[in-house]
Amino acid sequence: MSTKDKAASAKTASIKLAGLSTKTKNEVLSKISEVINKKADEIIAVNEKDIAWSQKNNLPEPLIKRLKFDKKKIKDVTENINSLISLPDPVGKTLSATELDKNLELYKVSCPIGLIGIIFESRPDALVQISSLCLKSGNAVILKGGSEAQNTNKILFEIFKEVSESNGLPEGWIQLIETRSDVNELLRLEKYIDLLIPRGSNEFVKYIMNNTNIPVLGHADGICHVYIDKDADKDMAINIAFDSKTQYVSVCNAAETILIHKDVAQKILPVLKSKLDEKNVEIYGCNKTCTIINANQATENSWSTEYLDYKCSIKIVESEEEAIEHINKYGSHHTDAIISNNEETAKRFMEYVDSANVFWNCSTRFSDGYRYGLGAEVGISTNKIHARGPVGLEGLVIYKWKLIGNGHIVADYVSGNKKFIHKKIY
Amino acid sequence: MSTKDKAASAKTASIKLAGLSTKTKNEVLSKISEVINKKADEIIAVNEKDIAWSQKNNLPEPLIKRLKFDKKKIKDVTENINSLISLPDPVGKTLSATELDKNLELYKVSCPIGLIGIIFESRPDALVQISSLCLKSGNAVILKGGSEAQNTNKILFEIFKEVSESNGLPEGWIQLIETRSDVNELLRLEKYIDLLIPRGSNEFVKYIMNNTNIPVLGHADGICHVYIDKDADKDMAINIAFDSKTQYVSVCNAAETILIHKDVAQKILPVLKSKLDEKNVEIYGCNKTCTIINANQATENSWSTEYLDYKCSIKIVESEEEAIEHINKYGSHHTDAIISNNEETAKRFMEYVDSANVFWNCSTRFSDGYRYGLGAEVGISTNKIHARGPVGLEGLVIYKWKLIGNGHIVADYVSGNKKFIHKKIY
Repeated sequence: MSTKDKAASAKTASIKLAGLSTKTKNEVLSKISEVINKKADEIIAVNEKDIAWSQKNNLPEPLIKRLKFDKKKIKDVTENINSLISLPDPVGKTLSATELDKNLELYKVSCPIGLIGIIFESRPDALVQISSLCLKSGNAVILKGGSEAQNTNKILFEIFKEVSESNGLPEGWIQLIETRSDVNELLRLEKYIDLLIPRGSNEFVKYIMNNTNIPVLGHADGICHVYIDKDADKDMAINIAFDSKTQYVSVCNAAETILIHKDVAQKILPVLKSKLDEKNVEIYGCNKTCTIINANQATENSWSTEYLDYKCSIKIVESEEEAIEHINKYGSHHTDAIISNNEETAKRFMEYVDSANVFWNCSTRFSDGYRYGLGAEVGISTNKIHARGPVGLEGLVIYKWKLIGNGHIVADYVSGNKKFIHKKIY
Repeated sequence: MSTKDKAASAKTASIKLAGLSTKTKNEVLSKISEVINKKADEIIAVNEKDIAWSQKNNLPEPLIKRLKFDKKKIKDVTENINSLISLPDPVGKTLSATELDKNLELYKVSCPIGLIGIIFESRPDALVQISSLCLKSGNAVILKGGSEAQNTNKILFEIFKEVSESNGLPEGWIQLIETRSDVNELLRLEKYIDLLIPRGSNEFVKYIMNNTNIPVLGHADGICHVYIDKDADKDMAINIAFDSKTQYVSVCNAAETILIHKDVAQKILPVLKSKLDEKNVEIYGCNKTCTIINANQATENSWSTEYLDYKCSIKIVESEEEAIEHINKYGSHHTDAIISNNEETAKRFMEYVDSANVFWNCSTRFSDGYRYGLGAEVGISTNKIHARGPVGLEGLVIYKWKLIGNGHIVADYVSGNKKFIHKKIY
């Protein structure tokens, strides 16, 4: 089947998916979780083949690490499916209701988006996670994983497909495509695909965003900031900056730049540096920073660099205003934190920093669907429409307007025979 | 100033707009409404110049009609501004709140999207309407109107700019661009513009959608259907089909195709035809339709034609399922209605028709922000994400996540020292 035919088939199935009961969806999820557990040995053996191939082809070590799908991963993904089952169904919720006139009632009701395209690199657990989220939210899905994980992806996909389609889900609701040329075809299928979610490196996500007319949910860069205000508690500031930078460096919500108010730079910088030295963090500092501590000279480029490594840019700012401007100019509108004991300053920061996540006195690393309590995460979005920040099930639904009348026609309202009452009923 | 500089300036202003109080926004709106009234004669004189120019250049009569900005239009737009003032501020609403842990609280708070680009043809009232909506929702705006309305647009724009900027709004929040080449530059400014709203003909909207990476909110086609079910009340069916088709033919929510269940076709078609004859509606019927009434032969193309005229496609279907499939295949996912006294059939129709607006026993013409009671309308969207159907103020806002801690770091939760409690507090 061509990619286009797969997408058309999934689109047709998506119509039926929209009408599935919560019970059916949860039962299917539960069976999928069971079968994954039952076939654990088989899945692991297949995954070992993928790993062996990747090692033979000298793929980078971190990629091979992410590719690994062992007993622990299987436990994680099946636990995640089980916790997804316990979440409320996002579909069919009445969001508002208005009586437009006697016996003419308008309901705004949540419904699935339709067909979601997921393109991901490496991690086969992403396949399980996102397919489960799509199933629970009633969306059809077309998946493209990394070629290094193709055997693992295939067996997981087949479990999803077989278990779901033999238990009441419409045929073709889940599709797998495998080659790079399929991806380029996928990006042109705006007629069928309603939303694309890419998960992978910056370059990968940027490529997707720049080469399709389909709406894309996600983020490319994660250039996050910690701003240490003049009214910051010194120990708290150092602790949070250290956690934001070093707790896990290769993720999008790790801090890349630390901004420090000039009034506290002398006091804080030397202590901060010795703390960062514990993890051998390489510092790129502005001119003033370099006069206070020993650091590499930052360039204009440093402020928009996502290191994803034990490296860090540091800049001394004249004011909170300069910090906000710097963040809005160089940041990626992902996650930015202020450390301050001044409530007014902090509130201003959270108001005027134009990012999906704005934090006060806590680490940027909290920016995550699990930590937010969303239960499950599709990804983190830096979009300015639809869904922003960590996106859970609610990012996979939209709504439709249902209007129920009793023969009502517009001519009566235009002529003045009848008048709207517009009474909120929900 | 270049279009890019205008966009950059508006983007900078958008940050400040996000922090404006409801009081300031309402006061400015009220002053703008006053000044429009005060300058009515001047505006009308300028508009007459535009009309004279358009007549001299033989622009189509309907376009010139839409261009007209007279006493009545001024009354309409100022009344609309006044009713907008009375609507609740969509910005700063807490949408949800969760206690992640002791003294670590997460708030999801609505905020403006940022910078909205509006491209519209003809009607200068669109400028007033959309600029007011942007102001109320705290968004900066960059406007491009039709060249035939340029003098009217300019005076209205200047009123908005002068009154608002001298009353506390940040300089540059509203921008006007004037030439067609500016539009093409605008479409490439994804760095600054967060959302584009085009208002105009199908071709115009399609052109915008196909030529930008900026998210576009709107609709191109409006191919709406009325499906007359076998359990329909005959009189109601004819009344609603007639209203949907003829009440105002040149609008997107007018019906273009009527589908009739085969069991009632014999009974309903002749009466429907004589009703449509009252307005000289030209009918394009399927083979079976043509055996029952006198009609032009429909072609495959008829089912996807938006007439916007006293013309109508009619098809006899075997079942509700065929009607739903036809609508999902040929429709534009805008507004579709079923006429039936069978609740189960109607509910199924509303579930499985994949349109922004699905109606039961009422006219497709109700699909409209004013009629829905949204107070004001940005436009009607057939997008599958963000906002769907008639879009009011809520379509111009998004949210940000505000996390407030007291020195919280992620390392404590990863090590197991601390545990999330995830208690819903709102």
